[in-house]
Amino acid sequence: MRKYYIGIDVGGTSMKMGLMSESGEVLAEAEHLTQKEDGPDGVIARMVEDAKQLADGAGISWNQIGGVGVGLPGFLDIPNGVVKYLTNLGWRNVPIKEKLEQAWQVPVSIDNDANVAALGEAWQGAGKGVDDLVCITLGTGVGGGVIAEGHLLHGMNGFAGEVGHIQVDREGVRCNCGQIGCLETVASATALVRMAREAIDQGRETVLTAESLSAREIFSACAKGDPVASEIVAKAIDALARTLAVLSLVLNPSRFIIGGGVAKAGDVLLNPLREAYEKEAQDNVKQGVEIVLAKLGNRAGFIGAAGLLARGRK
Amino acid sequence: MRKYYIGIDVGGTSMKMGLMSESGEVLAEAEHLTQKEDGPDGVIARMVEDAKQLADGAGISWNQIGGVGVGLPGFLDIPNGVVKYLTNLGWRNVPIKEKLEQAWQVPVSIDNDANVAALGEAWQGAGKGVDDLVCITLGTGVGGGVIAEGHLLHGMNGFAGEVGHIQVDREGVRCNCGQIGCLETVASATALVRMAREAIDQGRETVLTAESLSAREIFSACAKGDPVASEIVAKAIDALARTLAVLSLVLNPSRFIIGGGVAKAGDVLLNPLREAYEKEAQDNVKQGVEIVLAKLGNRAGFIGAAGLLARGRK
Repeated sequence: MRKYYIGIDVGGTSMKMGLMSESGEVLAEAEHLTQKEDGPDGVIARMVEDAKQLADGAGISWNQIGGVGVGLPGFLDIPNGVVKYLTNLGWRNVPIKEKLEQAWQVPVSIDNDANVAALGEAWQGAGKGVDDLVCITLGTGVGGGVIAEGHLLHGMNGFAGEVGHIQVDREGVRCNCGQIGCLETVASATALVRMAREAIDQGRETVLTAESLSAREIFSACAKGDPVASEIVAKAIDALARTLAVLSLVLNPSRFIIGGGVAKAGDVLLNPLREAYEKEAQDNVKQGVEIVLAKLGNRAGFIGAAGLLARGRK
Repeated sequence: MRKYYIGIDVGGTSMKMGLMSESGEVLAEAEHLTQKEDGPDGVIARMVEDAKQLADGAGISWNQIGGVGVGLPGFLDIPNGVVKYLTNLGWRNVPIKEKLEQAWQVPVSIDNDANVAALGEAWQGAGKGVDDLVCITLGTGVGGGVIAEGHLLHGMNGFAGEVGHIQVDREGVRCNCGQIGCLETVASATALVRMAREAIDQGRETVLTAESLSAREIFSACAKGDPVASEIVAKAIDALARTLAVLSLVLNPSRFIIGGGVAKAGDVLLNPLREAYEKEAQDNVKQGVEIVLAKLGNRAGFIGAAGLLARGRK
């Protein structure tokens, strides 16, 4: 009986992995350095060993493993299980599914990091039991994943859910992606810090100082009424609310899940976001919509990766 | 062997219906006045008879019918098959699925008009063989439907694909839906005519005249280089292109299908729309995307309605 699944979330710095039961319980987890300097074959070889040790350490023999899911940060050919390009790791054209299946002799599925995080939250986190949701991660960048009628959406090339690059300001600043005024240029942690630095450079009065700028400091200053911090947070919330309004019209989800470092602000972010969404969203599509915080933190990735197989790619 | 399906597209004025083979061939079709003054029971009773006659006339006995799909213009509880509110017909809380199944003794599915039109194009029209597409109908209003990985998306309350109410101009005019600057206020036939009328009222020089304003006239004047018409068409195309750019990020479809009266303009609309989309859309998500005209005209509705069952609600 193959009843256990392993999920692996590969990042530029570390690989998080978890052994999970079919019903979504985490039985064991581990974190290893990615050591990207070893190149794809070296990293994959360690991945193979680390996953076996994870199962072994939990007293699960490898023939009880039903499959392994892998979340990867970059461009993938998901159906064929091929890494096209991973920016952080410098991998190009790596048939990772084939390599891993050969080594492990179990089915392997891959998907991008934002998608597995969304699937993790949908399966075992803040979206448990919800069929239609959008998960938005506000971190260094802004990522997203869409679950529609229980299915993780990919679109033609796996880019469905790329909500961070929705344009929110035609007169805004240029994004890393080349476009102008993406959501990411206003609502990521990086964007909040950039806007605060600009205000400080302009000599505006604020408790914020150039030395200790972070999303956390900005939200904390906002909660205390600092005008610069409040203005920055308001701008991010306005852009987020308009994006959720658009997503409601396209997908009509019942829940938005907000995660990532910026979401650690909690109610200081969520309460005004709910208010702004209420104003921006169209009457029909906003009824019954909940905006909630993600629950799984940085475990969402490996949990969702395991879910790629454990949920039977529903 | 139940191998035939009937699709019915209920409008405020007429009901179009078709008898279809499992593989999507239209074997017979008919159009009847809706006669909404008879109320739901009257209209439903005639629908029951008309569908039976359609099968009969084509030499198909009723026990060869595998099911009937019905497209309806309004607010529906789709899973339960209940009409909540049809604006045009004035129906409220009509358990139409139950009534029709009782009368016909075959499975009945309902869905809204924009969704069945999208499904029709996906199944037998301009989206045949394509798994990820968005269908946008530019008519009196702007409607839409989304097929993602072969599935018609509904979202929580069936409003997925309501792309006509995506905000494209925060300083725009008020839409019927109550919001400001929806796509519908710029790119519907109604909007084109409104903008032309405003220009004429302002005394601007144009070949357009208040007496014969239509989307068709406006596109024809645009093709001849009329500055007012060109400006109006450019505005509509800009808003449409930005909307397609957003949809590409959310859904990453491989094809956009443009239908409705405004799409009759053909290449005068499509060519500049493709160019504008190329500029507006993000590099990753626009690769390989096609923007094409709908193929089925006003038969898309009944074809898609039949498809609700014939495609096995894939």
